[in-house]
Parts: sequence; C-alpha cells; structure tokens
Amino acid sequence: MARPKDDPAVLAEAYRRVRGATEALCAPLTTEDHVVQAMPDASPPKWHLAHTTWFFDTFILDGATAPDPAYAYLFNSYYQGVGPQFPRAHRGTLSRPTVAEVRAWRERVDAEILERMASGRFEARGLELIELGLHHEQQHQELLVVDLKSALLLNPMDTPIVACPAAPDASPPEGFVDVQGGLVEVGHGGSGFAFDNEGPRHRTFLEDYRLARSLVTNREYVAFVEDGGYRRPELWLSDGWYEVQAQGWEAPLYWERQDGGGWIERTLGGRRALPLHAPVTHVSTFEADAFARWRGARLPTEFEWEHAAARAQPARDGTFLEDGALHPEGRATGAHGEFNHLLGEVWEHTASAYRPYPGFVAPEGAVGEYNGKFMNAQYVLRGGSAATPRDHVRLTYRNFFYPDKRWVFTGIRLAETA
Amino acid sequence: MARPKDDPAVLAEAYRRVRGATEALCAPLTTEDHVVQAMPDASPPKWHLAHTTWFFDTFILDGATAPDPAYAYLFNSYYQGVGPQFPRAHRGTLSRPTVAEVRAWRERVDAEILERMASGRFEARGLELIELGLHHEQQHQELLVVDLKSALLLNPMDTPIVACPAAPDASPPEGFVDVQGGLVEVGHGGSGFAFDNEGPRHRTFLEDYRLARSLVTNREYVAFVEDGGYRRPELWLSDGWYEVQAQGWEAPLYWERQDGGGWIERTLGGRRALPLHAPVTHVSTFEADAFARWRGARLPTEFEWEHAAARAQPARDGTFLEDGALHPEGRATGAHGEFNHLLGEVWEHTASAYRPYPGFVAPEGAVGEYNGKFMNAQYVLRGGSAATPRDHVRLTYRNFFYPDKRWVFTGIRLAETA
Amino acid sequence: MARPKDDPAVLAEAYRRVRGATEALCAPLTTEDHVVQAMPDASPPKWHLAHTTWFFDTFILDGATAPDPAYAYLFNSYYQGVGPQFPRAHRGTLSRPTVAEVRAWRERVDAEILERMASGRFEARGLELIELGLHHEQQHQELLVVDLKSALLLNPMDTPIVACPAAPDASPPEGFVDVQGGLVEVGHGGSGFAFDNEGPRHRTFLEDYRLARSLVTNREYVAFVEDGGYRRPELWLSDGWYEVQAQGWEAPLYWERQDGGGWIERTLGGRRALPLHAPVTHVSTFEADAFARWRGARLPTEFEWEHAAARAQPARDGTFLEDGALHPEGRATGAHGEFNHLLGEVWEHTASAYRPYPGFVAPEGAVGEYNGKFMNAQYVLRGGSAATPRDHVRLTYRNFFYPDKRWVFTGIRLAETA
Amino acid sequence: MARPKDDPAVLAEAYRRVRGATEALCAPLTTEDHVVQAMPDASPPKWHLAHTTWFFDTFILDGATAPDPAYAYLFNSYYQGVGPQFPRAHRGTLSRPTVAEVRAWRERVDAEILERMASGRFEARGLELIELGLHHEQQHQELLVVDLKSALLLNPMDTPIVACPAAPDASPPEGFVDVQGGLVEVGHGGSGFAFDNEGPRHRTFLEDYRLARSLVTNREYVAFVEDGGYRRPELWLSDGWYEVQAQGWEAPLYWERQDGGGWIERTLGGRRALPLHAPVTHVSTFEADAFARWRGARLPTEFEWEHAAARAQPARDGTFLEDGALHPEGRATGAHGEFNHLLGEVWEHTASAYRPYPGFVAPEGAVGEYNGKFMNAQYVLRGGSAATPRDHVRLTYRNFFYPDKRWVFTGIRLAETA
Repeated sequence: MARPKDDPAVLAEAYRRVRGATEALCAPLTTEDHVVQAMPDASPPKWHLAHTTWFFDTFILDGATAPDPAYAYLFNSYYQGVGPQFPRAHRGTLSRPTVAEVRAWRERVDAEILERMASGRFEARGLELIELGLHHEQQHQELLVVDLKSALLLNPMDTPIVACPAAPDASPPEGFVDVQGGLVEVGHGGSGFAFDNEGPRHRTFLEDYRLARSLVTNREYVAFVEDGGYRRPELWLSDGWYEVQAQGWEAPLYWERQDGGGWIERTLGGRRALPLHAPVTHVSTFEADAFARWRGARLPTEFEWEHAAARAQPARDGTFLEDGALHPEGRATGAHGEFNHLLGEVWEHTASAYRPYPGFVAPEGAVGEYNGKFMNAQYVLRGGSAATPRDHVRLTYRNFFYPDKRWVFTGIRLAETA
Repeated sequence: MARPKDDPAVLAEAYRRVRGATEALCAPLTTEDHVVQAMPDASPPKWHLAHTTWFFDTFILDGATAPDPAYAYLFNSYYQGVGPQFPRAHRGTLSRPTVAEVRAWRERVDAEILERMASGRFEARGLELIELGLHHEQQHQELLVVDLKSALLLNPMDTPIVACPAAPDASPPEGFVDVQGGLVEVGHGGSGFAFDNEGPRHRTFLEDYRLARSLVTNREYVAFVEDGGYRRPELWLSDGWYEVQAQGWEAPLYWERQDGGGWIERTLGGRRALPLHAPVTHVSTFEADAFARWRGARLPTEFEWEHAAARAQPARDGTFLEDGALHPEGRATGAHGEFNHLLGEVWEHTASAYRPYPGFVAPEGAVGEYNGKFMNAQYVLRGGSAATPRDHVRLTYRNFFYPDKRWVFTGIRLAETA
Repeated sequence: MARPKDDPAVLAEAYRRVRGATEALCAPLTTEDHVVQAMPDASPPKWHLAHTTWFFDTFILDGATAPDPAYAYLFNSYYQGVGPQFPRAHRGTLSRPTVAEVRAWRERVDAEILERMASGRFEARGLELIELGLHHEQQHQELLVVDLKSALLLNPMDTPIVACPAAPDASPPEGFVDVQGGLVEVGHGGSGFAFDNEGPRHRTFLEDYRLARSLVTNREYVAFVEDGGYRRPELWLSDGWYEVQAQGWEAPLYWERQDGGGWIERTLGGRRALPLHAPVTHVSTFEADAFARWRGARLPTEFEWEHAAARAQPARDGTFLEDGALHPEGRATGAHGEFNHLLGEVWEHTASAYRPYPGFVAPEGAVGEYNGKFMNAQYVLRGGSAATPRDHVRLTYRNFFYPDKRWVFTGIRLAETA
Repeated sequence: MARPKDDPAVLAEAYRRVRGATEALCAPLTTEDHVVQAMPDASPPKWHLAHTTWFFDTFILDGATAPDPAYAYLFNSYYQGVGPQFPRAHRGTLSRPTVAEVRAWRERVDAEILERMASGRFEARGLELIELGLHHEQQHQELLVVDLKSALLLNPMDTPIVACPAAPDASPPEGFVDVQGGLVEVGHGGSGFAFDNEGPRHRTFLEDYRLARSLVTNREYVAFVEDGGYRRPELWLSDGWYEVQAQGWEAPLYWERQDGGGWIERTLGGRRALPLHAPVTHVSTFEADAFARWRGARLPTEFEWEHAAARAQPARDGTFLEDGALHPEGRATGAHGEFNHLLGEVWEHTASAYRPYPGFVAPEGAVGEYNGKFMNAQYVLRGGSAATPRDHVRLTYRNFFYPDKRWVFTGIRLAETA
C-alpha cells in the first residue's frame, strides 16, 4: 500500500481522518473541560487542538493562518528554532482564544491544506511534513486524553465521560517465554513512516532472556502494595525512593483505598472497584522497577522487548488506514503470538534510558527538535496503550517519559535473565 | 433609613440587587473566561460565583442546597471551622461544576433564601448573616474583576471587555491639607453595617499632620521610575527591595515600556497610552512606600486617613441602596471637601499594619475566621476603588493586603508630619 | 554619669569591656564551633567576631585595616550603601579568614581605635559612631549565643559548653496587675544612648489594661501542648497555622518528648528535664499569640509593656558600666516593682508590628540602614533575655523578629483588656 | 602479585598506605577548612575523614568503636539498610565531633583493624570488605579534594594550598584514531578488585568508530564560548539548556572573564591565567555534549572508550601498590598507545547512561547499596583524574555523575561514527 506522503489522495484521506479523530475525542467535553490544566506536565484540550494546528500552520503554511500574532507564541510547545514559548505551566491560564476560535482556526488550516493538496501545490518535502504532522497529532490525541484525565481526576467530583468496558473476568496466562538472543537488528529500517528517534536500524547483541507472557495485573500489584512495597527502601532506586517520600506515594495514581478494605480506581468512566485481572496502569518507571525487584525479576531492555515483539508479530508501519477502536480505559486484547496484550494495552516500561541510537543525527532545523533534544534522564516505553490510535502503534516506536511520571497509561511486563 | 437586616423587605431588595450585580459583572465574559486563574492570589470568576453562593448555603441554609457533597470542599475559601478546603492555588484546574451548573445553584439558593425571607422564616441572626453575606458578595465582586484582569492580562492577546472612560485631561490639584490632630475617635461605632475588624470604635492620639489633596498621578510616578526608583535600594524597605529583585519589577503592574519612549498601560479595555493625569494604580505597599520616601514624604496611617476623611465628608453606612456606577478602569470623581477623589477611585495605601483594634475579639464560630485570623504581615488600605460598589465604601472600612501585592486597584496619597 | 561618647576615657573603658566580652563568650568554643551556621537566620561565631570588627573598620576607620579587600564583602551584613554582601545563607561555607586571622584583625582594629581615642583624634561624630558600634557589638553578643545554640543543637550530640543554673523550685506569682491608661508618653527621649528606632518620644493613648505579674512558665505551656494547642487551627493566626503545618511544630524549639511521658529540653548545658517553673522560651510570636488566645488573654502592645515597665522601675540608659552577669540558659531574677522577672529573663512578645514611631526618619547614609529598613512584617519584643548584656537592657528598647522565629530566647507575658 | 585481600600482609601494607594518604591530603588544611561545605553535593573534609572510618567501623567492626552513638547517624552516607542518615545538605553545620576527635577515632579504628589483621582474626569475607573499604576510601580521597575546592573557591579570597605544576607549552596531538568495532567484550572479568557495577563482563556490539587522540583543550573550549556556545539552544539537550538558563552558565566552573579579555582559572593553587594547552576541565555532561555537537562530533559511549583504551594499554587491576603522585591541579601525562593522556588526567564524559550491565545483581545487604541504587539519570565517566590515586584507575572503572555537575575534574574526548 502506498505510504500517505507518496500519494496525495491517500494523504488527504489520512489528513481528514486524523484531524477528525482529534475533534471526536473532544465531543464529550464541556467548554470548561477544554480549558483546564492539572499540572505542568499536562496541557488543556484546547491547547492540544491549537498546538497541533500550529504545527501545520508553522511548518507547512509559514504561519500565514493565525488570526493573531500571539498564536505563534502561545501554541509553540518547545521549538526554540521557531521562537519563544508561552510558559508551559501556565497554559491553563489562557481563556483566549476561545474554544470556538480555535476550532475556526482548525477549519481554516484544514481548508487551506486540503485545497493546496488537491491542487498539487506541495513539494515532496511538504507532503512529508504533513505526514509528520499527522503522526504528531496522533501523539497529541493520546496526550489529550491522559492530560484531561489528570484534570478531571484532580477534581473530587466524579465526572464519567466514557463508559468503561467490562473488566476481564480471569487472570491472563502466567509465566515467561524463552527468547533466544544473539546479534540482532533493531530499530526502524523499512519504508514506512517512523520518527527520527526510531533509527538508524542497527545491530545489537542480546544474551538469551525470558519475557513475561502477560502484563502485571492489578491483583499482583496489590500484593506488592500490601507487602509494604512503598515502605521498603531496599526495593527502590535511590531517586525513586526520594519520590516515594516526597510525593507520598502509597499506590498507583488514581487508586483510592476503600473504607473497609479493597481498592477503588478512578477512571474517565468514574470510580469503580479495581478490576483485579486487568493490567496495572498509571505506575512510574520507579514503581515498575521496584515491583520487578520485589518479584525477583527485572524490566526488559527496549531491544529485548522489540526483538520478542518482532518474533511474535510481523512489524507493521503506521499508515493511517486502520480505524482506531480507541478506548482510553481498557481494550479487549488478544494474543500476539506467544504474548498476551503486547501492543496497545498499556505502554510497557523498559530498563532502557532514552538515548540516541548509533549514528543518530537529528534533522536540520526546528523539526530536529522534535525528539533528539529530550534524550536525557528519560526511559523508553514500548508498545502502546488503549488510548493510542491503532495505526500509530509500531514495533520500533520509542515513547519516553521521566521515571517519576504516572499520568500516562503505563504498565509492567517483567523479564528475566536466562 | 432602615438597615437591611432590620427590614426583610429592604433586605430582599438588597439581596436581589447585589446578587444580580455579580451576574452582571460576568455578562461580557466567555465561558472560558470563567474558568481561568492567573496566580494563587486570584480565583476564577466561576469560583467567585460559586463561593459567594456557598457562603449563603453554608451559613444560612446549612449546606442543604449543593447538588454534590464536593461543593462544600471546593468552594470553602478558608473556613477551618467548616471543614477542609480545596487548595486555593488549584482553583483554576476545576472544569466542574460547569458555569451553567454554578448558575443553576445560584438560582436555587436565591429562590430558597428569598422564599424563606418572604415567609418570615429567618430569625434576627439569620437576617444578620444574610446581610453579612451580601457585603461578602460585594467584596468578591471587586475581587472577581481584578482576578479576571490578572488572567486576561497574563495572556499576550489584547482582549477588551469594557470601554475605558476618557482619561482626565489635566492634573488634579496639588499640595497638602493641614489637619489638626489630638485625641480622636476612630473605628466603626454607628448602627449601620460594618465588618468586625472595623471596631471597636476607640480613641487614638494623632499629632498634627498634612495629607495630600490628590492621589499621586501616573505622571508623578513616571518621574520616580525615570529617576531610577526601582534601582535604588536606599528608597526601599529591605523586604521590598528583595521583591524588586526577585520579581524583576521595573514599573507598576500592567505597564509596558513603549518602543521609542513612553508607556503603555494594559487594561480591561485593552492597551492604551498611559493616562498621565490619572492616579497611578497597581502598585504595592512596597512601591508606595518607596515612592513616598523618594518624594520626602510618607504614607498616612490608617487613622490619619480616617480622621481627615471624616472631616471631609460625613461618615456613611453601607446600605445597599445606591446604584453602583461601577467601572473598573477609572471613574470621574469629584471633590470630597478639601480632598480630591478620596473615596472610590483607588484603594489608598497606608503605613498601618493590619492589626486588631483595642478590644477586638473575633466572633464565635466559623464566621469569626472572616477577618481576624489574617491580622499578620498585611497592611491596611482605605477608601475604595472604581471597582468597589458605591454602597460598599465606608470611612471605617479596612481593606488589607500583603505589601507585595499589586493586582488590586491600589494607589498612593502622601502624608507629611506637620 | 557621663555618657561614654561624651568622655573619651569612659568610652575607651567601655570599648575594652565590650570588645573583651565578645571574646569571652567564645572562650568555651572549639575552632570548629566558630565556623558553623545552622540556618540562614544564624551566623557563625567567627562571622560575628569579624562583622562587629568590620563595623568599626568601615564606619570609623574607613576600611583601612582589612588585610584583604574581600573582607569588605564578606563581613558586610546588609548595608547596601557600603557595597554588596556575601550571601547570608552561605556564611557557614567560609573557612577563611581563619579564626586566628579574625582575632588578629580584631586586635589591629582595637589598637588603632584605642590609640586614636587616646590621642584625641576623633571628632564628636566619630565618638558617637564608636558608641553605636559598641551597642551594635552587644546585640551581636546575644546573637552569637543563640546562633551558636542553633548549630550545636542541630547536632544530635550533646555538647554542654556551660553549666546551667538551678531551675526555680516554685511557680512565680500569678495574676494580673491593673494598669491605668490615658495619654502617655513612650519612646526614648533622654540623654542616654538609644537606637534610632526607639524614638522620637511621643504621646499615645492607652485604655486601662492588665498585665501579667509573671511570665508564662513551662508548666503552663505544657498544658497548652497537651490540650492539643498545636492541632487546633482556631487558636492560630492563619499565617501561624501555615507554619505549624509546614514546619511540623508540636512544641517549642529544643523540646524533645521523652519516652514514657514528660519533656526534655536541650540547652547549651546539654539535655535536661524541662524545668516546669521556669519561663517558657524559644516560642515564636505565632505560638505566643496562640497560647494567649487559648488562655482567653492576649499579648500586650509594646506601649502597654513600656508604660507598665516604666511604672515598675525608673528608665535606665545603657551605659556600658554594669558588669554583665550573662548566662544564656537562665538567670535568677527578682521582682521589678509589681512584676516578676520583667527585664532580662526572656524577650517578651508583644502584639505590636514593628513600624516607625510618628516622626521617625532614618539617619542619612549607610548607618541609616541599621533599623529603619526592616520595619515590615516583624513584631516588637521588649525587655531582654539572660543572654542580653545587663547594660544593654532598656525600657524603650525595641527588639524585632519575624513571627515564625524561635531561635532567640523569647517568652510570653499575657495581657488583658481591663 | 597477590591481591591484597588474599594476603593479610599485603592488605595491611595497603591499609596503612591508603589511610595515610587521606591524612596526607589534609595536611595543608586549617582546622576551619575541615568543617565547611559549599553545597549539598559536597561534604566537609572532616566528614570524609569520619565517613571512611565509619565504613570500617560499621562493616568490619560492627560499630564497636564509635565514642558516641550519634556517629552511626552522622557518618552514614546513604545506607538505608544500616539506619537513618543525618541530612547530607547539613553536613557543614556540624562542629562536633571536632577534627581532633575524628582523628582519634581514625587511630582507634586503624589500631583495631591492624591488630586483628596481624592476629589473623578476619575471615575471607572480612578481608574482602577491608579491601572494599580501601577502594571506598580512595574514592573519597578524590571527593575530599574536589569538595574542598568547591568550598575554598566559593570564597572570594584566594587561598593557594598547593603549587600548580607548569602548564603544557604546546597543543597535544590532534585528530582521531580509527578503531575497529565488532562483537567485543567489556566489563570487569579478571581476578583483581573491581566494584560490583563494573561487571559482569559481557559481549556488546560496536560499529567501527573514531576516538580523538587527545582531550579537548582550554583553547578549543574558549573558541566554543566565544562562538556563543552558551547562548545557542540548538546545541544543547533540552534539560541542559534549562540548566544554562537557571544557573547562568557562561563558561566552565571556576573560570573568570578577565577585564580586558582573556580568562582566569581559579585553582587550589590560586588564580592563574587559563592554560590554553591544558585539557578543559570542570565541565558538565551537558556542556561536553553541547561542545561535541558544536564541533560536529559526539561523545563516545562507555564501551567505545573501554574498547579503545584496552587496545592502547593492557588492563590493570587496582592493587594499592603504586605510589600515587597525586596532584589535583594537573599532571604531566604521556601517551598511552595511540592516545594522549587517556588515564588519569581528567574524567572523560561518555554518552552512556549509568545503567546496570546485563546480569548485574546488587550484592545482598547494605553493601549492595554501594552502587546499584544510583543507576538512574546519571552518566558514566571513564578514565580518572589527576586527583585519582594512581592505583585506583582501571579500564573498567565506571564513575558516574548527574549531567549538570561540574565540581569534579571532568573533561572531554570526542568521538565520531566511522
């Protein structure tokens, strides 16, 4: 199948679909929900709507469509090469432009892009940047969901905006799959789209290892909590133990201890009894690492993960063609070869620091700031979550967060040295 | 004229008028404007709408009207005796309840109060608390305006929501008025309404002094700025000099230095050339004190201010009867006896720490937290601003802020020792 | 008796005595003790030795004696008019100059001052500044003691460097003394030495009041603690309650709850059982205020205190003539008229904000920074402590601290409105 | 040659030598110098003297020798398994125990250890821990030097305590050495001593690469500074750019721009003109990374470094046998095979995050906290500095610091992808 950037008709179709998906995500929100920001890591939905539009306006349309010059400042996330940025922590203080004004801007940009596309006015580089802009927008679709969740759940009121799917009624398969190592190839090398940080494809050596068949469940994680996992420094990295103390962590984010025992989980569907057979989520790298140590196991490296996942399922390029059955609060997943819910249930923590691959060089210009400059102090997460658009999931995809972050849908798959 | 609390019909009329005035203030706002908070000192308009309603719900209706038990937590400002409070700095993270839900709550409370009032179901204490609630709401009307201003003006976009009145075209009268001191009486002692902190009325001794006929103008303040006022530590209190450095102050809040000289002032009516003959505003106590030192003068004490103001104009009790010609960005004021714009132009800084009057005892119960517990590290401001409802201005009124605060409409009237 | 500044021989004698007293305070210290600083509020003993010398060097000898130009920067406390200052919080990072080098500098300055004094080379202004320098040094003698205490007691090791006097074996007299108010004169007005902030002497009006005969004892304060005083927000000023939470206060500074009940007090003489009949000390203004509210009383204003103290005992000027029986951990005090231990037991908290007296103008030049610029957000303390040199105690003396400070020897005398 | 732990006589000799070397380092210090701490990262020399002794006391002598139980708390660095720790940031507030008391403790521990060793009372595990304790002490010897340097140089006074060796009078050789990659072995695997984090020895795959013959010199780094290196965000990692802004970095630590051009470097030998042909030092990982990007090169990975260094010089185990010609401010170094000053000039930044090797498991018990728990957010440095004892340098040694740290002797060797 043609890659979107190589076929304007396919790209136009993808453009309509991806842009529309962002709007669809906002359908259950009130105007007020669009404005709020719970913490500096998160952004208001309205900002996501505007920033993804700014991306097209800036990199494709040369900034020609913004109704106010302040937009260039307000909706630049972190591109120093483009200009200064309104402070991230204060995005929730902006009432203007209004939601309606942002939507009008989206429409204007969409019309302009689609019109130019239809009339063949983009060079190859332009089409490539549009494709990049769509993948960028898909990233923000997931962030929009988890950022919104952080704001709605900082509020003590229960505000269900989606209906949660039924929780699994049994534990997933247990145990580990033996994987043979050796000198293997990892990283993106195909003809499909990938972000710059997924390449170059290169060789790496892996010892034999074992990777858990399933994700760690809430039931297993409750056992860790009840065993004093959050009170035993010997289980934690030193920086992690510091966070436990400083943040007062006692359980994953959004868990509430129920009077009389048991746990409640807060979700976008409201409060509900913690589904014990579902994968644990909203845990940081520090928690994943401590849990693994408690279990006598460890987290896999990103290459162990990729090598096993590739074996379980042929690599797939993101192509914007599949319809995303997006459900932020869980998804019925099946098996991927020997592994259970490997792709797209929760982002899977790895033991790998987010650093450049051998031979990586960031692209020239402001677009080069997309990924490369963040290669410090963060960890790689692999796979994808129920909030990740289906066609945005890739075997070589490298998501990354600081190890104390918990607001994204993140989970744990254990590994062992063979 | 009957004091509202003593005449249910008068009180009901005042109730309708004051509650309606709050709504009227919000008329030019978008839904988004209702949600945002620029800084911990300020609250979103929606929160003001809800909190003033919470006050009636809690102290008059025993919390019976809130549609969700979380309201008691979300909209309690600082009353420890009532219960815990949602953190003030995070009020702008709340999208729920929505503006419409808050308005519906207001209507429900209003209906309930007015119905009970009409049917004579309140005891004297209840009527007294309703009257207090109205004065409380009037305080929040002014805060709503300045808080909103802080949010709209943190945004680089110009968003005029009112039309500014024409600026004065000439300097106000200059010079000082000689005032004779002696053993004088100060504080509230009449039969009209006053907050607890305005009494008891008591004797104090004043030496003879001189009080400026007019407020310091922007023109005079520009001279201070141009003379290096913000770069000369010898003009400042030590804590004030610390703020100058830490906050990078170079001029009053909302001033912008124009390319090519001159100053722009940002207002709720948008950017405009600084009106040189208008009183300077948005200055902190520290700045007022430094300006006075630079001029070889000083700030008046609160009693010097009250004694002179009483001489210029008979004391007036707040009675909710006059119609407020509220205009947050300036008001054409006339003379009050020998003094120019004495009441209701800008809040006037004094040299007096906000401390209890001799014999002051806070009322029993949670209402006793209204004023008394804040009597530390703040300064008294007197008079009133263009955003203060006309019938909320009193000669004995003690407003109070920390000396580094600038977001309220505050100004400077100088004094001299005779 | 001649005031020192008016008689060079008397001044020289005072100079030797005061400078020697500072050295004597350091006699029990190790070299290491001279270097350490527990917190930004405190300074190392070595710094006090150097700073008091810097004062003479700078204001009397024009900076001629410092062996290194860096001294002017290192030992300037806060005089912006003299030049920049080494950051206060980092004074404990300075190993150089060494203690021996600082002592050598002291000797050089002393020799120079005494030689010039003997040869009559000082004008009246010079003699006046030397007198000021001696009072300045006496202030630092007390700070040296409490600052050192804060460092020695941050250390878990018990390091007795003085022998504590026996604790009182009975409660002091109880009850209040009725004091008649009226239009009274307060402030320094005599011919003796006083700091600028003690004047001008002026009239103030006092209602009749009652002042406690004795200071609040540890026994009484234990009752407040045991009654939940530190857990009841209604007893506290709002800013005070914030400190209780933020600092985790549960008792006065240096108290340790003993296993099995009872309290230990840490002192410069080591750990000991809390002496129940001794005045409580190391309490902040916030704690004093909360205790008073708990008792249904209040703190006196500084003028109520001064007026009562003046009645009890004739005002006395500090003259450097009496020999100080300085003992930082308690002193056997007798009666002063109707009042028990009124002067020099512990500094007595007042309800008065530290603000300028009517007509106060700070002196010209850098010396004008001594007191005036700190007149914000602090409270006046009156009397003196066991660590205050005897001849440094004055009825008009205004000590001042921020209301959360506890490391100075501070205590509580209650007042009541008559 | 026998490894010390396997021959008590060799170990005793090493013990005397290493313990004596620590004392020798302190010889030029005043008592005051022993007490001070410039920042939370650093510790006072006295603390290092005590902590290294605590290590032997705790892990070998079961805590039997401390004269005060508080020592266990005061001198525990970070071993949660041993007990709580006095806050690191406040180590400079401790005047007690005194330097003399710490020295007396050292002597007592030394006597006890040597006596038991001589009388053959240690099992193999005991001898192994003693050997570990000596390597631990050698680490602290270097920290003692750089920590002291940070305190002496926070002080504006120039305090030379060593004589700097002459600076090189010519640039070192330029250019890169081609190194062939492949599947190589890295990590410690020999019979000599190594820290747990240096193993297990394992296979890793390297592409061919080029490693700079020499370290980056001050001359080259000045060119980066003069080219605006500290003002160009595109050269920096995002977290690094944040530090540049927050810390106000404009050049390496301890550089001062000279009036009239040129640079001064502050050293333990005092201020001197920056030696242009000497390797740049006191740069953070962020600065090293930005410099490399500016030069169109990159930092080597730790395995590229180790593989090249192993080729240049046979691996050497630390054996405590060579006499350390320790000079903290530079050392005349010669060639190591094709590379200039490869080992022991300055610690060389790498691109490698400090993470566990495949198969790494921290030892059981508190000693397991030595290295493993710090494997987050730090980077590996390789080689050694002029302040590293000669026999402490190893090809497999992994030093590690957070990427914003600059107080250690760190430098830059560039790499290129072949």
